[in-house]
Amino acid sequence: MTIIGEPLNAIDTPALVVDMHRMEENILRVHRATFDAHLQMRPHIKSHKTPEIAQMQIAAGAVGITCAKIGEAEVMSTGGIDDIFIANSLVGETKMRRLVALAKRTPKLSIAVESMEAARQASDVFDAAGLELEVMIEIDAGAGRTGVAPAKAVAFADAVAELPALTIVGVMSYASHFAYTARGEAELVEGAAREGEIISGFAEMLSDAGHDIRRISGGSTPTAGRYQEGCGLTEIRSGTYVFYDRNQVDIGAAPMEQVALSVLATVVATPTPERAIIDAGTKGLSQQVGSVSDGYGWLPEVPGAKVVKINDEHGFVDVTEAARKLEIGEKVRVVPPRAPTCLNLYDWIYAVRDGVVEDVWRIAARGRNT
Amino acid sequence: MTIIGEPLNAIDTPALVVDMHRMEENILRVHRATFDAHLQMRPHIKSHKTPEIAQMQIAAGAVGITCAKIGEAEVMSTGGIDDIFIANSLVGETKMRRLVALAKRTPKLSIAVESMEAARQASDVFDAAGLELEVMIEIDAGAGRTGVAPAKAVAFADAVAELPALTIVGVMSYASHFAYTARGEAELVEGAAREGEIISGFAEMLSDAGHDIRRISGGSTPTAGRYQEGCGLTEIRSGTYVFYDRNQVDIGAAPMEQVALSVLATVVATPTPERAIIDAGTKGLSQQVGSVSDGYGWLPEVPGAKVVKINDEHGFVDVTEAARKLEIGEKVRVVPPRAPTCLNLYDWIYAVRDGVVEDVWRIAARGRNT
Repeated sequence: MTIIGEPLNAIDTPALVVDMHRMEENILRVHRATFDAHLQMRPHIKSHKTPEIAQMQIAAGAVGITCAKIGEAEVMSTGGIDDIFIANSLVGETKMRRLVALAKRTPKLSIAVESMEAARQASDVFDAAGLELEVMIEIDAGAGRTGVAPAKAVAFADAVAELPALTIVGVMSYASHFAYTARGEAELVEGAAREGEIISGFAEMLSDAGHDIRRISGGSTPTAGRYQEGCGLTEIRSGTYVFYDRNQVDIGAAPMEQVALSVLATVVATPTPERAIIDAGTKGLSQQVGSVSDGYGWLPEVPGAKVVKINDEHGFVDVTEAARKLEIGEKVRVVPPRAPTCLNLYDWIYAVRDGVVEDVWRIAARGRNT
Repeated sequence: MTIIGEPLNAIDTPALVVDMHRMEENILRVHRATFDAHLQMRPHIKSHKTPEIAQMQIAAGAVGITCAKIGEAEVMSTGGIDDIFIANSLVGETKMRRLVALAKRTPKLSIAVESMEAARQASDVFDAAGLELEVMIEIDAGAGRTGVAPAKAVAFADAVAELPALTIVGVMSYASHFAYTARGEAELVEGAAREGEIISGFAEMLSDAGHDIRRISGGSTPTAGRYQEGCGLTEIRSGTYVFYDRNQVDIGAAPMEQVALSVLATVVATPTPERAIIDAGTKGLSQQVGSVSDGYGWLPEVPGAKVVKINDEHGFVDVTEAARKLEIGEKVRVVPPRAPTCLNLYDWIYAVRDGVVEDVWRIAARGRNT
């Protein structure tokens, strides 16, 4: 018995569901706008962790992908992706051994570096294997997360350039603070421009110091498709634009009608007229609360119904202001506040088109978090 | 190459690690105290989702286990557990079909019921299959989550008793509000007693109405091992007592020296003297923040070091008040605020004894959330 060809409502719950038509539209719209600005797409796959979706992005013109973890890159390489950038600092003996093995079976591999310890470890193992590794210098653009301080970037790049097996090919930053403080189209476009200015400034600084900076990498979901020609970047690493979520709607990155990901849940109890209980809680929706709108989930087909509280196995839907009441046994779609943390709870994703299950994909890189 | 027999530090990060000695002690201590009070243990396995740990609980005298989901029960039945109680309301055609299949291969199976819709669905499919199903009446003891209202419990039980295939065997409540508002030993013992009073009151009410109430089920982790003889319960469903976590330490349920579960993480950057970045964020520790102590993780070997902020792949460790600084490349153990939500992110758990990996278990019921 297969679920393929069955209606959405035949899926057992809780389950992760993607609307294929919306996802295809999201990919095409964002890629087209990016290519129109003469930029490359190198989407971050940590949002979907699914080789089939990565292949859709490549088919829609992405030059390659970005991963957070070696484990994700291993899965994507096996899944047929040829050009992989790992946008995180990697340290440790096991990771170095895995990185060399990955490089041997991946036509194009690059990683981010932000510390001499990490850079030296990578250079040592690649040198010993008789291989070269392309690296992107990660610089802190003000998000205060990772990356070398701008004032130390030239000295750091100079030192990395001295290492035998590493080749500096570019610069990257994660400048989410411009995107996530913006609200609405004009501010998002402005945020994308500000991000481009800052990161291309870093690139210029390193170029002036004699480094060959070919790739200038930025990107976040709110700014996806909003970078203009001449913004100073060369490639965009946005990821969640394939799905969007409630936070992105609140920011103004996409209307609710473009949100492609939801959790299918069943109403299991209606203890009071104001409250319905669904079978998706912290393990079906995640503990993530909306960053703008307060709540754990929204029911697009029942306007006004919102998940206001969760525990491990249950979500509490407040129906006080809902368009209608919910009934025990009925299945409802719930849009999460943030897609990547919700997706990370599931092993499978149901691809649905026009209310019919078209495919079921393994979220093959989930749990591959080392 | 196997990791078994290797030192803790050989494990690639982030990774979930259980201290075997502590877990064995936790299980023995809680079970012994429970048996001393002439109560049965039926631990909730949603905290660990691992058949090997369920088998340790059975070996330590548990009468059976409690599950939240049919998927968990399927895995545990395959893992050799003979007596399973599903403590949640189940509805829907697919779930009913799976429940019958599970009953056929599990010597003792029981479920909770709290709505006529759910009860009727179960009775219909079991009746059609020529089988009987034991059910526990779930009553809301004031936690305001699920369960029928106490005032409606007798009428509900009467109606359930009319259904052809269901046999009422007991009553259950989840009365966490007594446990989680308590602080320290005396209040926890008092909370356990209050819980026993309320739930056994429900049992009496149903017995008085003519129902044969053999099982009276309660339990939470803070109160585990703190129920006294004559408390009115017959079986305890606590779960996280095998591990404990920072929240349990804050409540006073266990000292930090009994916490058995931690995440092994690597320091990947030290951007400022006050801040170290580890490779465990929302996907390695969870978004859960401590319910008493504010934070996402604590480093037991580095007193004063605390994870104060997380994003998807990184944890920000504040070392301002730490006993020492952290170095890039070093591996640190991090105790999460809440064990079950952290464990739910991983596929494997490393069983470590005296600093050496003794076994690696698949968290086989993780992701089995339908």
